[in-house]
Amino acid sequence: MTHPIEFWFEFGSTYSYLTAMRIEDAAGARGVDVRWRPFLLGPVFAAQGWDTSPFNIYKAKGEYMWRDMARRAERFGLPFKRLPETGPGAFPQNGLAAARIALVGLDEAWGKAFTRAVYSAEFAEGHDIGEPALLQRLAETAGAQGDVLGRAQTQAIKDRLKENVDEAFRLGIFGAPSFIVKGDLFWGDDRLEDALDAAASK
Amino acid sequence: MTHPIEFWFEFGSTYSYLTAMRIEDAAGARGVDVRWRPFLLGPVFAAQGWDTSPFNIYKAKGEYMWRDMARRAERFGLPFKRLPETGPGAFPQNGLAAARIALVGLDEAWGKAFTRAVYSAEFAEGHDIGEPALLQRLAETAGAQGDVLGRAQTQAIKDRLKENVDEAFRLGIFGAPSFIVKGDLFWGDDRLEDALDAAASK
Repeated sequence: MTHPIEFWFEFGSTYSYLTAMRIEDAAGARGVDVRWRPFLLGPVFAAQGWDTSPFNIYKAKGEYMWRDMARRAERFGLPFKRLPETGPGAFPQNGLAAARIALVGLDEAWGKAFTRAVYSAEFAEGHDIGEPALLQRLAETAGAQGDVLGRAQTQAIKDRLKENVDEAFRLGIFGAPSFIVKGDLFWGDDRLEDALDAAASK
Repeated sequence: MTHPIEFWFEFGSTYSYLTAMRIEDAAGARGVDVRWRPFLLGPVFAAQGWDTSPFNIYKAKGEYMWRDMARRAERFGLPFKRLPETGPGAFPQNGLAAARIALVGLDEAWGKAFTRAVYSAEFAEGHDIGEPALLQRLAETAGAQGDVLGRAQTQAIKDRLKENVDEAFRLGIFGAPSFIVKGDLFWGDDRLEDALDAAASK
């Protein structure tokens, strides 16, 4: 008898990539069910007075993040590329389209595979995940059928993503990845094990 | 054959408390020598445009920090009190006097014990570490002799603390605790094990 873990992620977030690639194995080993919750950090950052990632605003912290990410990715055996500061594919990338498609996919069977594929395209390959053709291809490879981009543009999907953002605010979420276990917030890929321990305890 | 680890700490920093209490045991188990480096976060935060701790400026992040600290302290078996937002002993406390005394003590034999005692007084007991009488008593208990407060007010000690702050900037340090191993920066108590692994490898 374990509790579920909610995994809140933003497609532009470097550390969310690490979690997306490893959470199912880590949770499965403890018998914990994972609920994938895409959201957007843009509105969260805007509420803190930022118009971009704090890693771009605070240079020393940003330099460190790229160094730390390279070490953490190596630790988990994941390929990782530092994104450029300007131009196509610059950090932080816009995860809006990917998040809407992920919501469609998580209602079906291909959402998790699609999410992992998007993160790999972004942080292992350096692709721009705002590209519709890329997203369509990744969704099809993950098992989606039909006009995925169109289905991701319905008002119902747009509203659900907005509701996720509102819920993130209510939960006190201020960064990604974040985890909710029994109403308790954990922040950062480096708290995944603590969150899973909490989920696996009574 | 291991490499030394530099432990950069600020007395007002909650997470530095966790590291101060556990680093010597963790490093000793790996045969790693620890170099204790007190510094001040005030100038570092000021350079980022902040006039107090970011945990006070960004409320959601601050709320989370106190929750996370309580969990991490419990994990390490350390007592922990949330500090008040205003009044005596409010967070963040001013660590200037303690840092200067620590520099005196680290030249002698009592600097580490004094540092641990200051952190305990602050975060386990909730005392105001700006109080000269408290600092004098903690230094004596740690083994100091004579007029510790006077010796901590010499120009040489003031200059050394300033030099530590300058060096922290040069090293790219933007928060505390931070660790330097072979020139590489690690940030946060939750990176202590990674930093020690790096120190213990060739």
